[in-house]
Amino acid sequence: MSDDLESRLAFVREFAQTSPYYKAMGMSIVEIEDRRAVLRVEIQDAHLNADGIVHGGVLPAIADGAMGNALRTLRGEAAQVFTVEASLQYLRPVTGGSLLAEGRVVQSGRRISFADVEIRDEASGKTVARGTGVFVIQDKG
Amino acid sequence: MSDDLESRLAFVREFAQTSPYYKAMGMSIVEIEDRRAVLRVEIQDAHLNADGIVHGGVLPAIADGAMGNALRTLRGEAAQVFTVEASLQYLRPVTGGSLLAEGRVVQSGRRISFADVEIRDEASGKTVARGTGVFVIQDKG
Amino acid sequence: MSDDLESRLAFVREFAQTSPYYKAMGMSIVEIEDRRAVLRVEIQDAHLNADGIVHGGVLPAIADGAMGNALRTLRGEAAQVFTVEASLQYLRPVTGGSLLAEGRVVQSGRRISFADVEIRDEASGKTVARGTGVFVIQDKG
Amino acid sequence: MSDDLESRLAFVREFAQTSPYYKAMGMSIVEIEDRRAVLRVEIQDAHLNADGIVHGGVLPAIADGAMGNALRTLRGEAAQVFTVEASLQYLRPVTGGSLLAEGRVVQSGRRISFADVEIRDEASGKTVARGTGVFVIQDKG
Repeated sequence: MSDDLESRLAFVREFAQTSPYYKAMGMSIVEIEDRRAVLRVEIQDAHLNADGIVHGGVLPAIADGAMGNALRTLRGEAAQVFTVEASLQYLRPVTGGSLLAEGRVVQSGRRISFADVEIRDEASGKTVARGTGVFVIQDKG
Repeated sequence: MSDDLESRLAFVREFAQTSPYYKAMGMSIVEIEDRRAVLRVEIQDAHLNADGIVHGGVLPAIADGAMGNALRTLRGEAAQVFTVEASLQYLRPVTGGSLLAEGRVVQSGRRISFADVEIRDEASGKTVARGTGVFVIQDKG
Repeated sequence: MSDDLESRLAFVREFAQTSPYYKAMGMSIVEIEDRRAVLRVEIQDAHLNADGIVHGGVLPAIADGAMGNALRTLRGEAAQVFTVEASLQYLRPVTGGSLLAEGRVVQSGRRISFADVEIRDEASGKTVARGTGVFVIQDKG
Repeated sequence: MSDDLESRLAFVREFAQTSPYYKAMGMSIVEIEDRRAVLRVEIQDAHLNADGIVHGGVLPAIADGAMGNALRTLRGEAAQVFTVEASLQYLRPVTGGSLLAEGRVVQSGRRISFADVEIRDEASGKTVARGTGVFVIQDKG
């Protein structure tokens, strides 16, 4: 692995560890490599609606995190990643357990980048949601 | 206003007040009427990424909440609302302040219901995101 | 109306009239103004599936046309409009008659532009589909 | 292969061959199996905008066809397939050649079915677009 890639991956790990939102949501990076990131979140009471079903906003949150970090591996700390559009299909209701969200870069161009994500129940391996996103990666400074 | 509508709106208010996710995210209902709900969220440190930009998952969360509650006014406690698909367009980056998310029922049929949402910065009134969703409303019990 | 706007609108009208796809699909512009375009299409046998229902690809076609032309009013012949992402919600099945698709610019920035579209049955005025799109407007030459 | 599956696949082939829209668009099924369909379309003048770029509505049309036919293999002539929502990401502009659209069933439940699609340039094999859709499969009669 080149030093450059290693420093970009280190940036992404650091980004996730120091982002207040990751801490608040109980999200962490469990795998990170070039163009791919896997996030883990353990469903907590704080993710539930009054009817015991996971709130519909929890899955897009980890979906966005997984796609965003996959994209952050491309440029590391030299650039910021902005979500332009995101879509998510909810295949199965989630009531508890832990989720793994695997985000991958589909294509990254000068203007626009595309990513997708698959969210699985960690215990059963079943896919609970799938999504796609459009992003802009912008030079810092 | 019919007693029936009033009891459905009371259910939605109660649902939001007792949902752990609303509390964790700092979301509350500020307006609720037949087929329409407005949620408010004050951006907190817990919503930010390490770069000070609101995490891309915060906006879909309040978008889903606003659409879901607009749909809950249709059947009240007699039914559960499940998100099937959701899309969001991010028009402007958000760094702080308070957001209002206005969700409306677009159409509700026997099998499928549609809603949309607009998220505005409370201070400036500027639209920061717009989205749509597909939902299933399912009888309880 | 400024001469400049008039020349941009004239370009869009010309664009639609000379596009082979518009002719093949039976689409035409019925209204065009700054940031807004209305397309009309008369449902023909060539739009149907074997079961007599309009093919699911007809509505995105006129949706894309309406949004694209709304965006073309911004820069006229100086730029090309590329679709990056498009989403459509199908509210009602369509079996015949004529459709009007109204596309509007939601926001246009340096990198990314957003539009939305509503498709109505011309006779009843009922909305049959609603959609959104992300676009890039690129300088020609 | 069971006789039942064979008769369902035969129905889908027949459906595509007799659909006026397929003929008008120059689309045909090149592969069909349980839960998967590949459509081919040769880009013609009739698919172009005035600027020589394939109209943004052509790709959703073959995307919808590929996903719809993948879903039709599930129930054959016993049911109708209705598109509820469709999203498409445009990865590369298309100016000519032939396209292959591969649609697959992601999940099919009692109320809702999900599919996805990948569109590739036939000569280069490069992916030009990717999409997802939500569908309802409804009993006939």
